[in-house]
Amino acid sequence: MIVTLEGLRARLAAGTPATTIAAEALARIAAFNDPALFLHLRPEAEIMAEAARLPQGKLHGIPFVVKDNIDVGGMPTTAACPDFAHVPEADAPAVARLRAAGALLLGKVNLDQFATGLNGTRSPYGTPRNAIRAELIPGGSSSGSATAVAAGIAAFSLGTDTAGSGRVPAAAQNLVGLKPSLGLIPTRGVVPACRSLDVVSIFAHSVADAAAVLAIAAGPDAEDPYSRPAPATWRALDAPPAAPSLAAPLEEQLVFDTPGDAAVFHATLARAEAMGATIRRVDIAPLLEVARRLYDGAWVAERTAALREWVVRRPDALHPVTRAILEGGLERRTMDAFDDFHAAAGARLLARRLFAEVDALLLPTCPGIPTLAAMEAAPIAANSRLGTYTNFVNLCDLAALAVPAGFRADGAPAGVTLVGPAHSEGRLCGLGAAIHHAAGIGPLPPVPAPLAPHEIALFAIGAHMAGLPLNRQMLGHGGRFLRAARTAPAYRLYDLGNRPGMLHVATGGGMIAGEAWAVPAASIGPFLAEIPPPLGFGQVALEDGSRILGFLAEAEGVASAPDITALGGWRAHLAAKG
Amino acid sequence: MIVTLEGLRARLAAGTPATTIAAEALARIAAFNDPALFLHLRPEAEIMAEAARLPQGKLHGIPFVVKDNIDVGGMPTTAACPDFAHVPEADAPAVARLRAAGALLLGKVNLDQFATGLNGTRSPYGTPRNAIRAELIPGGSSSGSATAVAAGIAAFSLGTDTAGSGRVPAAAQNLVGLKPSLGLIPTRGVVPACRSLDVVSIFAHSVADAAAVLAIAAGPDAEDPYSRPAPATWRALDAPPAAPSLAAPLEEQLVFDTPGDAAVFHATLARAEAMGATIRRVDIAPLLEVARRLYDGAWVAERTAALREWVVRRPDALHPVTRAILEGGLERRTMDAFDDFHAAAGARLLARRLFAEVDALLLPTCPGIPTLAAMEAAPIAANSRLGTYTNFVNLCDLAALAVPAGFRADGAPAGVTLVGPAHSEGRLCGLGAAIHHAAGIGPLPPVPAPLAPHEIALFAIGAHMAGLPLNRQMLGHGGRFLRAARTAPAYRLYDLGNRPGMLHVATGGGMIAGEAWAVPAASIGPFLAEIPPPLGFGQVALEDGSRILGFLAEAEGVASAPDITALGGWRAHLAAKG
Repeated sequence: MIVTLEGLRARLAAGTPATTIAAEALARIAAFNDPALFLHLRPEAEIMAEAARLPQGKLHGIPFVVKDNIDVGGMPTTAACPDFAHVPEADAPAVARLRAAGALLLGKVNLDQFATGLNGTRSPYGTPRNAIRAELIPGGSSSGSATAVAAGIAAFSLGTDTAGSGRVPAAAQNLVGLKPSLGLIPTRGVVPACRSLDVVSIFAHSVADAAAVLAIAAGPDAEDPYSRPAPATWRALDAPPAAPSLAAPLEEQLVFDTPGDAAVFHATLARAEAMGATIRRVDIAPLLEVARRLYDGAWVAERTAALREWVVRRPDALHPVTRAILEGGLERRTMDAFDDFHAAAGARLLARRLFAEVDALLLPTCPGIPTLAAMEAAPIAANSRLGTYTNFVNLCDLAALAVPAGFRADGAPAGVTLVGPAHSEGRLCGLGAAIHHAAGIGPLPPVPAPLAPHEIALFAIGAHMAGLPLNRQMLGHGGRFLRAARTAPAYRLYDLGNRPGMLHVATGGGMIAGEAWAVPAASIGPFLAEIPPPLGFGQVALEDGSRILGFLAEAEGVASAPDITALGGWRAHLAAKG
Repeated sequence: MIVTLEGLRARLAAGTPATTIAAEALARIAAFNDPALFLHLRPEAEIMAEAARLPQGKLHGIPFVVKDNIDVGGMPTTAACPDFAHVPEADAPAVARLRAAGALLLGKVNLDQFATGLNGTRSPYGTPRNAIRAELIPGGSSSGSATAVAAGIAAFSLGTDTAGSGRVPAAAQNLVGLKPSLGLIPTRGVVPACRSLDVVSIFAHSVADAAAVLAIAAGPDAEDPYSRPAPATWRALDAPPAAPSLAAPLEEQLVFDTPGDAAVFHATLARAEAMGATIRRVDIAPLLEVARRLYDGAWVAERTAALREWVVRRPDALHPVTRAILEGGLERRTMDAFDDFHAAAGARLLARRLFAEVDALLLPTCPGIPTLAAMEAAPIAANSRLGTYTNFVNLCDLAALAVPAGFRADGAPAGVTLVGPAHSEGRLCGLGAAIHHAAGIGPLPPVPAPLAPHEIALFAIGAHMAGLPLNRQMLGHGGRFLRAARTAPAYRLYDLGNRPGMLHVATGGGMIAGEAWAVPAASIGPFLAEIPPPLGFGQVALEDGSRILGFLAEAEGVASAPDITALGGWRAHLAAKG
């Protein structure tokens, strides 16, 4: 269920048609079943037609999504504000370049309204589900962009990042989040947050995937005042320095939500040292100080300026939290703004000095990923805390790369971010790939959608499981994969030829592997009607103590069949048969 | 009386001691006699002592002055606001680099208060005299920096330039004004005007001189947030392109004070074409539009921010015009400021496109140089007009070089400015040197100070003239050179051996060349007591109809002396004798 650019390229090179990849992406959208994810999902027919005639570029056939504050010609741009919706004529250059390289756009995804937030809950369209830990915030503002990749729907996505919107969601969903230098990817066609600080960012499962996308999206745009040419020597991915020199904050400057978050960061430092890096602790107080000015200084007025008609004339059209933030920019004085600008210039100077001495600054991506409940309890404070290590980066004209670093004991992911000077993406990606690899963690399988009210969970143990011959029957009835699971140790499994039969036993039972699927309640009857004896549906006890509907056999029907309980499941049996 | 870096270097190389150069500079300060020029003139003994032990660098022995908004350690910085005066400990890096290269600092010169103005009349210390046309404004805000060079006191000077303060005074006084790229010369130790846009600028008589100073003053400063490194290929002076491509404004976008100002500009274009340049007329409306925002937009609040304590608490300490301007920045809103910043970003984009196609933009430096009377009549409007072609340059992150271009029929100078992208100084200087050379105009001799009330003008015709054996007698009595002059055609000149005798005649007289000097009235008697017969002082009629005191001979004393009237003067006679 993990879809990487590298993996899809291999399949496409081996002959899998782009239309197959596209159909799989559509199936995963249905299976993930998150109504808060897409703000505009292209019609299936349109996607399939485009998949059949994609340009033969470096991204040929790779499905992606874009945050809905980035223009796509002919599709509405809402910035998660329904009244703001309008249909631009042309693709933003960032999107146009990816599509010209053959990437397949699936649609546009949810965000914190007007990209103002770092948590993902500030949208009137709902909160996209964190695809790996449903109880956690998805991260924002590029919530949907992270969820779509973590859910295996898209191989990569575009977000935007002004204060950390391209990094915090990556940490929240165990992804790579690449925040390029200011002006490297054009921001023309992006709804401005802080126009002078906005960048288009990239989410992917691996650094290599993100760098491959950056190499195509980057480059000057003659129409964009904030576009900047990179030096001629710029590359998206370079080999890392053999003995990298890294800076990290002074220990007393580090704040974490839990000891588990701290442990992940310290383990990352230790692994970096084991890889040959030298770690130098540096005082990042000046960076943290300037960060404060992003929302408590001039730049909140830049957000307000971009939306002044809405803030002044139609405040009711705004999300209440977004409105409160934007109203804070109305009366700020220019005189004070220059204090902020000069402070930012001072911080940039300190950053230049720092990066004259170290290859990168290694930081936690955020202090921790809060639960949805914790976020709801403190919508401003918890959001601000998420930006602790991200807010200063664009103010200081730096590049950053967030990579997964590990998990807390409770399973919440934690990420680290490498920060370097403008146009240091090559170096950051080289280092980041090594640090990600050293963490020994790959992408996590997405958490499927919870059961909807109209659905019933059904435990499959045989040929109806994913990829097996009768799975089409399951899909035909609207079933969607929930998760792999095992029964309580109270069942025996028998080989009925092309399918197994499972029998509840009072003693001597084993644990049988299977899959929980969600099936529309209305389909249970018709589905059952297609199941020949000796099989039927009944309650099955699972390993975790829960009971769900599942495939059971009548005792007589399996009496003469071979007992394959010892193998633990039908897939293992098939494998053993060869 | 014209002092160039090149000329002084030649003299120093030939053995003239730096102390002699220093003594000459002090003599010229006395002779120019402008109480509004220096805000801090170093004591003579201090200057002479330093002249004797200057470092052996590329500027060894070259006298210079700095605008009094640039710190010099141990000397007061006033920014032309007496109450603002304070004594910094250290030289600004720009000054320190020049002194380390051996340049001799004479002192600190007047300016429009807080560098807010382009005309030179906004100082409580008075208005420095325009050294070549006393009835004209000196130009500002770097008024004293231009006057000191035009007056032959300093070989070069430092000014600052935010809106045009390094270019307008150059045009007003027939000088080269080099306004480098933002951040090329550190602005640390400079009293901020618009800190994000301020640059240190250079005045000199030739482009080569200015470039030589720039090469030493330029370079990154690790303590200055607005310092920027130049590309490795940067040079202060490059050979000009063989067939330069120049842009010039559309004809209808050109505004001039008089047809004479227009004629100088058009003659410059014609000469450039004759030199092989192609001239492309371009629409500069977007540049003119953004220029307006410098004083009618966010940046006036940047000025206010830098001086808010003064504007709010001590407004009476400010020059009334400066105060009115700075108060305009108090209430501006940050939200609106971002409109200005985005507009500036747009203008920078247009400039990038323009300079992708042409080597430089050729502009009048200003529409014309107004008289002091015209400036007094409209202190704000006439000042704004001076910035017509200069205000946009720093907003658009461009470099500029103002060079003399010619004179109106009434003798007022007119300059042109070459504008190019950031770090194009080498190209601009190469082009500018060619354009200055093609104009066929050198530096103008400075206009001496008018007679002070305590002085009497004395017409010398012989060995008391400048550089001749008895001139030390003239200097010893406090005489100072006013100008070269000729008598009315009513005199005959005789050779008395080591001196001439001049006799008034009723008919058959010739015009005799001499020099008008100013001598303190109290010295006339003692001076006369030293003059042996047959010479004495009497009224001499000059060519222009005026009469001044001068050297005359008794008729008997010249009766037997050779008549040298035909040669027209004593210097010609000395030359003929060989």
